[in-house]
Amino acid sequence: MQKSFTLRTDQREALYDITDDVRKVVADSGVRTGIVTVYAQGATAAIMIQENWDDSVQRDVVHLLAQLIPKGVWEHDRQDGNGDAHLKAGLVGPSEAIPIIDGELGLSRWQNVFFCEFDGPRDNRPVVVTVVEA
Amino acid sequence: MQKSFTLRTDQREALYDITDDVRKVVADSGVRTGIVTVYAQGATAAIMIQENWDDSVQRDVVHLLAQLIPKGVWEHDRQDGNGDAHLKAGLVGPSEAIPIIDGELGLSRWQNVFFCEFDGPRDNRPVVVTVVEA
Amino acid sequence: MQKSFTLRTDQREALYDITDDVRKVVADSGVRTGIVTVYAQGATAAIMIQENWDDSVQRDVVHLLAQLIPKGVWEHDRQDGNGDAHLKAGLVGPSEAIPIIDGELGLSRWQNVFFCEFDGPRDNRPVVVTVVEA
Repeated sequence: MQKSFTLRTDQREALYDITDDVRKVVADSGVRTGIVTVYAQGATAAIMIQENWDDSVQRDVVHLLAQLIPKGVWEHDRQDGNGDAHLKAGLVGPSEAIPIIDGELGLSRWQNVFFCEFDGPRDNRPVVVTVVEA
Repeated sequence: MQKSFTLRTDQREALYDITDDVRKVVADSGVRTGIVTVYAQGATAAIMIQENWDDSVQRDVVHLLAQLIPKGVWEHDRQDGNGDAHLKAGLVGPSEAIPIIDGELGLSRWQNVFFCEFDGPRDNRPVVVTVVEA
Repeated sequence: MQKSFTLRTDQREALYDITDDVRKVVADSGVRTGIVTVYAQGATAAIMIQENWDDSVQRDVVHLLAQLIPKGVWEHDRQDGNGDAHLKAGLVGPSEAIPIIDGELGLSRWQNVFFCEFDGPRDNRPVVVTVVEA
């Protein structure tokens, strides 16, 4: 089973919690044991599993990546000025695979699934969720 | 087929070789061609494929991440003082997908599977191994 | 379905576009809905999804990683002098999982699949492509 949805992002760089969207696809699939892959279609976006106890870690992710990968110093910036966004997306990666255990998304208590926007805001960020039975 | 096991970690930050545990699940599954996903349930842990010729690379991973992501300077540290652990876990990622080839774990000669502890020691770190036939 | 191929690399560090190789395996599999995993067998290599509008981002990836992970300062360098290559490979990761949508590789317009060489040149870098139906 596979479902796509789109996300609207309202900042240049931010993390958006999509755990409930992924959980719904898993529930709809009826699969009891397997994996679900979450994929961000976009070369300046990514998927990260991260804590969601409060918003602080999500902002820390943005700040960490801004320190590691500064803006405006890349060869690609001569093309369209978003070299840092591509590098952040490539390093974090567009895909995560999460186990499905007893019909539920197999995250731990504090793990949530986040869409990482690195070159927003954008109106239509597609995410593809695929469920595979084990 | 899916199996979980837990790991005891004895340091705040270290890599633990779990290749044999993963290999055993693959053997027990009887699957000849497919993929196996390895997932760390824990927002301050991760899975990394890395060399195991000696222990040096494993220590180098800990040192590299300590340089890139220092302790005590994150917004989340006001909550529970482990902001660096969450950032390390998010960047490395909790999941890897390895091919199963002719019934064997498809690692290369020097690749092993490591559990990365970033906020230990912990008594019970759960890892979920899922085998999917191709 | 699973297919392996090998790659010849001609530089110590560079990204090589393998999108067409992956696309061919997906087409040959006949799978309409599923995932395809791409795996680099080699502890000094990795797989990254990245933009391919021009070559600039690929060179930026090499330069970024050289800044974050310098050569010659790691414990493993006393063994065989390629500590940086192992760390780059571990951080980027050897595996990506991409959705198959309507029989096609589900990349976005600007996403391509790259083999990352961090310790070349090498004559035979194996890549394993596995297709799983959803």
